[in-house]
Amino acid sequence: MRILGIDPGLARVGYGMIEVEEHRGGAQHLLDCGIIRTDPGRSEGERMVEIARDLRVLIRTWQPQLAVVEKFFFYRSSTTISVVQARGVLMMTLARFKVPVVEFPPMQIKLALTGHGHAQKDDVLEAVMRELNLDTPPRPDDAADALAAALTGWFQR
Amino acid sequence: MRILGIDPGLARVGYGMIEVEEHRGGAQHLLDCGIIRTDPGRSEGERMVEIARDLRVLIRTWQPQLAVVEKFFFYRSSTTISVVQARGVLMMTLARFKVPVVEFPPMQIKLALTGHGHAQKDDVLEAVMRELNLDTPPRPDDAADALAAALTGWFQR
Repeated sequence: MRILGIDPGLARVGYGMIEVEEHRGGAQHLLDCGIIRTDPGRSEGERMVEIARDLRVLIRTWQPQLAVVEKFFFYRSSTTISVVQARGVLMMTLARFKVPVVEFPPMQIKLALTGHGHAQKDDVLEAVMRELNLDTPPRPDDAADALAAALTGWFQR
Repeated sequence: MRILGIDPGLARVGYGMIEVEEHRGGAQHLLDCGIIRTDPGRSEGERMVEIARDLRVLIRTWQPQLAVVEKFFFYRSSTTISVVQARGVLMMTLARFKVPVVEFPPMQIKLALTGHGHAQKDDVLEAVMRELNLDTPPRPDDAADALAAALTGWFQR
């Protein structure tokens, strides 16, 4: 089963694609991870066009059977209108390509990975490395968060 | 000059298309108005796919040279994650078709139409009818709000 994790944003969208071998005890592999960076010199609308286009390429390349998108709440100071708008474009693009989506709040992702809803970033990173058998941490951070979301999608299926 | 006004939402998106005859002293005409309604039985992502598709049809049909979209603030109780996400899809679709966008907060639209930032809904409706020479009010309300936005785009150009 192929799962795409997404850490939404306007300037940077983290993504992580994993493969779970369901017939082999659920062995998990990293297929691809990285970030979609948008041009800060462009309008918000144009940056969202870039996001939709790049996500489309990812979906066509990897054909994920599930997407996991971090859930937002307005009380988080980092949640801005721009970021929520970009999340809408991500959700719409996933729906257009009929990729089923599940959403988890950040706390639930931390809990699933580390056993603690208030885990530190390094603990989540360590758990991602352990689960995917990585010798070096996935970079940048947004990609690690996206992989954590993808893994949560598998654990909570 | 053709101007498209948009009142964003997930369940209902109000739209209003006006034509301004710049060479004839700025005479303003109503071309089209209405709402895009999305199916409440579908997922948010699917509803945003509907919104993108219907807006695409409107843009192709009327070829607006400017779009005016109501600006959001989080302190308004009616501004939810869903509505902001849908607004992102609207902004992205306008950018994809290279329609220039201006944004005004609701108070500025009321001010431009009536001279009062805290005008009542009926006052705005009356101003829209007067500016567009309408005998009957445009319906539904979302469409009147969208027309008010379009007119503001003209007044503030």
